[in-house]
Amino acid sequence: MYDEICEQPAALTRTLKSELRAAERLKRLVAANPPRFIVLVARGTSDNAAQFARYLIEICTGIPVSLAAPSIFTLYQANVDYRGALVVAISQSGESTDINVVLERARAQGALTIGITNEPRSSMVPLAAHVFLVRAGKEKSVAATKTYTGQMMALYLIAYALGARIRIADLERIPAWTEAALGLAPAIEALAQRYRFMEQAVVVGRGLNYANAFEFALKMMETCYVVAERFSSADFLHGPIALVEKGFPLFLFAPSGVTWPSMKEMLEKLRHLKAETLIVTDRQNMEAPADAGRAIVIPARIPELFTPIPYIIPAQLFAAALAREKGLDPDRPRTLSKVTQTL
Amino acid sequence: MYDEICEQPAALTRTLKSELRAAERLKRLVAANPPRFIVLVARGTSDNAAQFARYLIEICTGIPVSLAAPSIFTLYQANVDYRGALVVAISQSGESTDINVVLERARAQGALTIGITNEPRSSMVPLAAHVFLVRAGKEKSVAATKTYTGQMMALYLIAYALGARIRIADLERIPAWTEAALGLAPAIEALAQRYRFMEQAVVVGRGLNYANAFEFALKMMETCYVVAERFSSADFLHGPIALVEKGFPLFLFAPSGVTWPSMKEMLEKLRHLKAETLIVTDRQNMEAPADAGRAIVIPARIPELFTPIPYIIPAQLFAAALAREKGLDPDRPRTLSKVTQTL
Repeated sequence: MYDEICEQPAALTRTLKSELRAAERLKRLVAANPPRFIVLVARGTSDNAAQFARYLIEICTGIPVSLAAPSIFTLYQANVDYRGALVVAISQSGESTDINVVLERARAQGALTIGITNEPRSSMVPLAAHVFLVRAGKEKSVAATKTYTGQMMALYLIAYALGARIRIADLERIPAWTEAALGLAPAIEALAQRYRFMEQAVVVGRGLNYANAFEFALKMMETCYVVAERFSSADFLHGPIALVEKGFPLFLFAPSGVTWPSMKEMLEKLRHLKAETLIVTDRQNMEAPADAGRAIVIPARIPELFTPIPYIIPAQLFAAALAREKGLDPDRPRTLSKVTQTL
Repeated sequence: MYDEICEQPAALTRTLKSELRAAERLKRLVAANPPRFIVLVARGTSDNAAQFARYLIEICTGIPVSLAAPSIFTLYQANVDYRGALVVAISQSGESTDINVVLERARAQGALTIGITNEPRSSMVPLAAHVFLVRAGKEKSVAATKTYTGQMMALYLIAYALGARIRIADLERIPAWTEAALGLAPAIEALAQRYRFMEQAVVVGRGLNYANAFEFALKMMETCYVVAERFSSADFLHGPIALVEKGFPLFLFAPSGVTWPSMKEMLEKLRHLKAETLIVTDRQNMEAPADAGRAIVIPARIPELFTPIPYIIPAQLFAAALAREKGLDPDRPRTLSKVTQTL
């Protein structure tokens, strides 16, 4: 897992370079025939990438996005009307039966279909009209890391194709920002010690980093067996905040940008409750007078739109380091296998 | 909270009777002008009702449904294209600023708008073109119960208006099924003792009962301060199942119907891991040879489509009873207030 975390800058550069052509092709196609709405289909870590894309695409293109519930097709045999839709299926292995079923049905209905996968020879590839390959190389650890960020890069390209004002030159800067975040590894390893006996936690993110809250929590559940909840800061205030007592551990994604005021307000509330907070943030926010508790400070000034990939890096490093502190093998979590078949 | 749980059969009957006319009116309206897709907007417990409706509407009408992320409007000021959409906002109080902002913007864009609220004089009412009132009477407990099921009843009526093959005669049976579930109160109170020192848990549901997993977990978080995760059985297999060790407590919604085979398979897996399971189910499933661990058996034979309301009753009773066992006041959870204002 640690090695694969470190491979991400190179994998991201490869994915961006090789898939730009697919994005330009898609751009021409949708310019002629814009989709009515977009449906994203995925499970597990790929579903977290889908959650990111949901915000990205709605914010940057205004096209409505829905995250599919595959059981509606596989168990209930419903016939959802996907005519005129763009359906994007995301799967590391390309072998998730339920995801592929939705893709097949959507294509049969006349939807424009895209598959995003790390495996060029997987079952998903012939099912989708267009394929974006994540060029991350074989992922060996059960806990997905480099395929998550690779999927996000492919999704930036798809947003670009759909008309988002994203400059390719900005996407090209993401690998360097990711590299800068990787430089935090020694500090994060030292920090992880403190959490050796943590058994439960809450992760909070908002907007474009909401998906990262899901992904960080999933990594802690899979590799550290910490019961890690995940919420948007708004949903958290609608009930779950009652959980928080003195010393309760919370992790918050807090980049500069439109989500910072609400995140800062939440930090003040949590300080009042004497919770123990750790934020992933940048220097700019650290200058603001927020008593933020512990902080992991990304050493780069990143526009909020491009924070999600660099900001998940410290979380991945933290989960890998904490698993080691707990005497666990993050590459082989109990009960799990790399390809999960569900219907 | 306990009193309001018990008021539900009467509240459901009232809501169904008084809102049937609104449903018939909506039915005529959408027959002439069917929506391209549907957007549901809510937070907290109301968002769990929205999650239920997402399955209900897609399964029964085939119209695609999306759950809105309000921050896309309120923080990012994005202009999502809701022309031709039906936008349904759900709020117990009708005073959630972010929900009302989305409703207002959607209406300005020409979307057909519906508001579902318990408060006829709330800010939401004049903002929506059509209103479905939940006739639950004032909800005093901070933990929502009767407004959740009332919202679900309103959402059945909206699905009916959208062309779902739901007979009003079947909806009229829901209060009696709910009453039957309430008869389990003494057994559930005895059962709650066992969980006095439970600090974390997982709730699993699928399909139409997926939302109930969210709602049960939320009730345990709000009133019992149990760190309660919630998953669909499929998502749970994609990672979080690694959490489960000997004695780990899991709660599963397991009605008869299309979700039962996958739920039964999961129960077998959990038995193998020596987890402690408690299922909410019916007599029919108990006859099948599944070693299901502990069970709460609903004393009625309910078609799966109508299980979500009766099945949440034991969960509400359990949360109220467990809070009492833990010496907590479920009506006044720490940190929370009845109306939550977020942006």
